[in-house]
Formats: sequence, C-alpha cells, structure tokens
Amino acid sequence: MRPIITLTTDFGTGSPYVAAMKAVILSINPEATLVDLSHAIPPQDIRSGALVLAEFAPQFPPGTIHVAVVDPGVGTSRGIVYARIGQQDFVAPDNGLLSRLAIRTLPSTIISVTQREFWLPDVSATFHGRDIMAPVAARLSLGLEPSRLGPPQAELAQLEWTEALVSANKIEGAVESVDSFGNLITNISAGALARVPRGEEVAIVCDEHETRGIFKTYAEQPQMTLIALVGSSGNLELAIVGDSAAVMLGVRAGAPVTVTW
Amino acid sequence: MRPIITLTTDFGTGSPYVAAMKAVILSINPEATLVDLSHAIPPQDIRSGALVLAEFAPQFPPGTIHVAVVDPGVGTSRGIVYARIGQQDFVAPDNGLLSRLAIRTLPSTIISVTQREFWLPDVSATFHGRDIMAPVAARLSLGLEPSRLGPPQAELAQLEWTEALVSANKIEGAVESVDSFGNLITNISAGALARVPRGEEVAIVCDEHETRGIFKTYAEQPQMTLIALVGSSGNLELAIVGDSAAVMLGVRAGAPVTVTW
Amino acid sequence: MRPIITLTTDFGTGSPYVAAMKAVILSINPEATLVDLSHAIPPQDIRSGALVLAEFAPQFPPGTIHVAVVDPGVGTSRGIVYARIGQQDFVAPDNGLLSRLAIRTLPSTIISVTQREFWLPDVSATFHGRDIMAPVAARLSLGLEPSRLGPPQAELAQLEWTEALVSANKIEGAVESVDSFGNLITNISAGALARVPRGEEVAIVCDEHETRGIFKTYAEQPQMTLIALVGSSGNLELAIVGDSAAVMLGVRAGAPVTVTW
Repeated sequence: MRPIITLTTDFGTGSPYVAAMKAVILSINPEATLVDLSHAIPPQDIRSGALVLAEFAPQFPPGTIHVAVVDPGVGTSRGIVYARIGQQDFVAPDNGLLSRLAIRTLPSTIISVTQREFWLPDVSATFHGRDIMAPVAARLSLGLEPSRLGPPQAELAQLEWTEALVSANKIEGAVESVDSFGNLITNISAGALARVPRGEEVAIVCDEHETRGIFKTYAEQPQMTLIALVGSSGNLELAIVGDSAAVMLGVRAGAPVTVTW
Repeated sequence: MRPIITLTTDFGTGSPYVAAMKAVILSINPEATLVDLSHAIPPQDIRSGALVLAEFAPQFPPGTIHVAVVDPGVGTSRGIVYARIGQQDFVAPDNGLLSRLAIRTLPSTIISVTQREFWLPDVSATFHGRDIMAPVAARLSLGLEPSRLGPPQAELAQLEWTEALVSANKIEGAVESVDSFGNLITNISAGALARVPRGEEVAIVCDEHETRGIFKTYAEQPQMTLIALVGSSGNLELAIVGDSAAVMLGVRAGAPVTVTW
Repeated sequence: MRPIITLTTDFGTGSPYVAAMKAVILSINPEATLVDLSHAIPPQDIRSGALVLAEFAPQFPPGTIHVAVVDPGVGTSRGIVYARIGQQDFVAPDNGLLSRLAIRTLPSTIISVTQREFWLPDVSATFHGRDIMAPVAARLSLGLEPSRLGPPQAELAQLEWTEALVSANKIEGAVESVDSFGNLITNISAGALARVPRGEEVAIVCDEHETRGIFKTYAEQPQMTLIALVGSSGNLELAIVGDSAAVMLGVRAGAPVTVTW
C-alpha cells in the first residue's frame, strides 16, 4: 500500500517552498501519496498550526505520516521531534506544534531527531522542513525504524491550552479558531454540552453578541442570523447563516464565549 | 488503472476541510488519484460551482468520479445525488450544482443517495461532503454498483440558465463567469457566432464598454486594449490585454453582452 | 517508477485551468505523479516564473518533467520549446521562461515543439498549456523520444539577467524576488559573499534601509529587526524577523542592494 504523507505549513497556499519539500520526499520515496493538509496557517502562528493538526490529522488512516512546519525558531537550539500519537507518525519542530494533539492522546513514542545520516547532506540554517523533516518522513514511509532517528525524549514541548470551564448552569469558553467560512470554532466540546438544553432557554454570548438555542444545521435559521451549533469539528460553533461571523461580528480567536441556561 | 476522483468545493483554496475529504477517500481507497478541480467557488454560490463543473469536468477522462460540494442546505431535506453524465460519475448535493452539466448531456442514470451503509458511521449535520459524498465516491472508485446507493430518481434539481438570444443581426447574452485573469466569459457559444463576421463591422458591447472585431488571441491587440475572442472555454470572452477586464471595467457575472453586425 | 510532472503557471492558486491541464495529462498517462510547483506567478510575469523555476525545479529528482506556462504571447508566432537541462526535461513557451535556468546549466538538447501528432487534436488559440504542453509532457512521461517533437533549435529565447557586481570592498546587487513570507531574495550568491566578513563591520543597504552583519538564522535577532542572512535559496536575503520585509519596508523586486565592508 502506498504510504500517505501529509504536509502542514505556514508557507502560504501555493508557495513553491511546499514543492521543495515534495521534491525531497519524492526523491527518496517516489511511491508516497502526498496530501496538503493546510499551508494557510498564519505565518509563525504555532497555536493555529497545533489546532489544525489536532482537528484534521486524526481523520487520516492509521499509518499516515504527518510533517508539520511552523518553525519561527528554525536554526536555533529548539529540537526536531518524532512522535507516535495514536496510530500515526508526526515529524515537527519541538515548539508546541504537537501539544494540542498530545492532550487528547498521549504519545506512545517520542524521539529527538538528531541522527544526521537520515537528513539531506547539506542542511541550511533556515529551512529544516526541506532539509531534515521531509527526508526523515520519506525514510519513515519506506519503513525506517523511528528509534534510529535519535534518542528517546520524555516529553513534547507544551503550549498552554485553556479548557472550557463547566459549572451548574454555565459554561465559560472561548473562540479557538476561525474557519475559511468565517465560522467561530470554540473550545466547548459536544461532551461539555451533553447536559445543556437545546431550546430557547439556552443563551450563547460571544463578546457582546447573543443568540439563543443550539441548532443542528445552518439552514434551520434564516440568512444573516447568528446561530450556534455543534459543527463538524465536534465543538460548539457560532456562525452567521450565509455569511462570515468573523467579519460581520469582528470576532477573533480568543474572544470569550459563555453558554448559560 | 488508478481511478481519478476530483474535488470541487467552496471551502477556499488550501482549506483543511478539503484535506478531511481526502483523508476519508484515502482511508477507503488508498490507490485513488485525487485532483483538486477547484476550491475557489465563492462560498455557497451554487451557480458558479455549476458553471465550473460544466466547463472543466468533461475534460477529464472517461471513468472519472467528480465530487462537488457547494452545499448551503446541508443537513436539511435537500437530497444527495449520484448521476452518470456522459462517461463520468458525479456525487453532489441535489441543489442544481449538476444542472448546467445536464443541459448539454442528459444524465443516463440518477440515483438518490440514501443507503447509509456506504456512508461514514457517524454523519455530522454540517459536513456531508466528508461524511457522505467522500465515502460514496471512494466506494464507487472501488467498483461499487451505483444502483446500490439508493433508489433511482427521475430528475436533477434545476437552476434557471439563460441562453443567449440569437437574431438576424444581433446576439444578446451575458457575462456568465470571471476567470482568474479577470477575463469575462459569456454565455455566447462559438456555435452562436458561426454566422458572425470577425472584422471591424462587428461590435461587442458589455455594459457601456464597446469593442470591435472578434480576434483569435490576446496578442493581436496592444496592451490595455479591450478585446473580444473565442476563448479556451469555447465561448465568447472579453479581455483587457495584459490586465483584468473585471477590475478595469468593474464588470461582474450577469452583465449584459450584445454582439451586433 | 511513476514519472513526476510538475506544473508552474500564472493561473492563480486554485484555478480550474490547472485542473484542465491535469485532466489532459492523466488522460494520456494515468500513472503520472503531478506536483504543483507554483501557480502563484504574477500574471504574465515571465521573469518571476523564470526565477521560481531556476530555484525550485533543480530540487526535483532526475527524470522529472517540468511544464511551465507563463505565456502572454500565446497564439502568436512565439514557439514552444522542449529543453533538456541537467537531468530534467522542460516544456514551455520559448519566451525566456527557461532562460534563468539555462544560465547555470547549459541545455544539452533544445527542440522546437512543432509535431502536431503529439498535441490535442483541436488546439485553441489561447490555451496552449492545455492543448500542446500538457499532452507533450504526458507523452514524454510515457517514454516518447524528445527528438520526435520537432527539429532541434540552437538557442532558447533569452531575458536579460543582471549579475551582482563584486569589487574589492563592495558588492552591488539587487532584490530579485520576494517570497511568501515577504523576505527579499537578492541576486548576491553565497559564493560572492565568500570573502565578506560576517560581523558588524559589514553593512547591507537596500534602498535607504541599512543593517549590519550577516547572520545564519532569523532567530539570532529580536522580533521586528531587519536582518541579512544566506537563505535556503543559497542567496543573500533581507528579512524582518517575525514580519514581512516587503510590506514593512515597501521594497519590491529590482531594489538595489549593496554590501560594503
């Protein structure tokens, strides 16, 4: 079976730097199936990259190898890390990019990527995605044993992730990301909402904007209405039917969201 | 032979939601060749999606499976449909997205996609592209008989498509879409232009802008000139040589175009 | 082994015209591995296309076939050309698009692409990328002998490329391109910098902006600092740490850069 390698970067959609990584991977394993997970991570925004990886990487089949490059510290002492999380493999700078994934599923293996024999012979100081991570991923896809990449490492670098606060009649959370439709994805999971009624008696407030009721689909409300629903991410989302909530409301990641009933 | 599956969506180029659909397809058929037809359909703009599909899908080889997701009614009673059009297979919401294609070539089979055994086990209310259409397309690519997807259906949902009006010395049409160069693609086909002279005696007017003559290539006129030609779509196009006609003239889809001689 | 065909165009990332070329290639060779090198070349900007090709194409493995379509003269007498450069094959309009590559490595074969039997049967006047270059590349990937494409040609069309001027205590060059991070890539190569000190005694000036020292990585200086380093392209780059130098300084390709020590 042809191995799948996904790429997640902040290079910008259509950047030739993405092609440079694919060139290296295909030079080593011409049979790899390459999938662009996203190259639209805002430049150097490790948190956004971590959220996208946590939501989308687990949807790929077991055995998929994910390479993630949001790497403002390239060329410094920050390490490069291999992690086995669930049944998938990850190669990334050790700067917190894998920390959101690792909250849900503890990595079973973490390796510090230090063995230069699996890298390109000449490593630039500014593009380890091409020179280290791409060749390492390609060799893993050919069956290289991860333990050969370097010594084991106890933990991944962490970022702070705020969980929604659930109390008797209230959940306090926040907008965690904004999708390409301008929908506001919160950190309030479907699980946290299990005891919450769905009807008019529940109020969802984001900044000064309020809506009532939790719906199943966008189409249950008229155009241009603010609506709350549990989206395809499995978390509570706020959307403007037929338009961009982020633009219409001027809301960004970090905005507080409260659910009361 | 590796089956080709194309994806056309309004998710935005580089959206990770596209990767989510690819993850599902490759989980079921790792040998599928995935091609992005376009993810730049304006959000929820079914007409634009229908035009892009009608122009570009038929250029793919026989046997190609096209998945199209422009789906503002996701989660409502709008159906999901399989259609065999020409020698290709289409899976889409039944909201008119396939209606432009079906004008030129009558579908030989239309199936209402209702058999849940071919979908993902858990179907979200907001992302049927990932949860229904992607797995259905992947199973078709493995040889699943379309008749097993659900019961036959008599017709596809329709949108209204205005044909250009051809009279003795005049054709009345409209700009139907704008390409990425800003060229204005009309609904006036090369066939409708067969009797029309090519020289200075023919006038093409779009909004208040006029040009004379129908040319073969952009390079026949100087930079910054408004030019009419039969483009690669097979329809009459209006272009500004070396620039964007849409931006320079402030013209959008829907603008009237008349050809007189 | 599955042959690699890359595509470089000015169609815009996500353009369905790219999909049209892939449709033609896969119709002829369903086993080809297609890689988007870049579709973000500014419209009709042959120089930018030539620079991207020169930097990124050579990173692909031997035997890769590169198709490049930045073609403002489509449909005129400008030719279409096949060139063997290094161990790779190129198909492009003969308008200078391959001229930057050909400075570093003299083409070993140049063929004027004139034999219509290898093209699509109907050739439009405005989209030779789809109708001529895509099918020619696909047939080459199946083993077609390049000499059958047409007669040999002595030279490729040229653009003028200015080399940096190196003197005793000064190098005079220019910004040649801007990458997706807004970094300014100059025409001053690492080789030209071999004799240049790295410390405070070296001054790099671009327009009226000055910085001192040549660094190894972005992270050696604080955020928002102008920094000079030898980037992954192998050439001197100017960057603003954590931001876009192009936007912050208002600098574009063509701006003069001097290095003095």
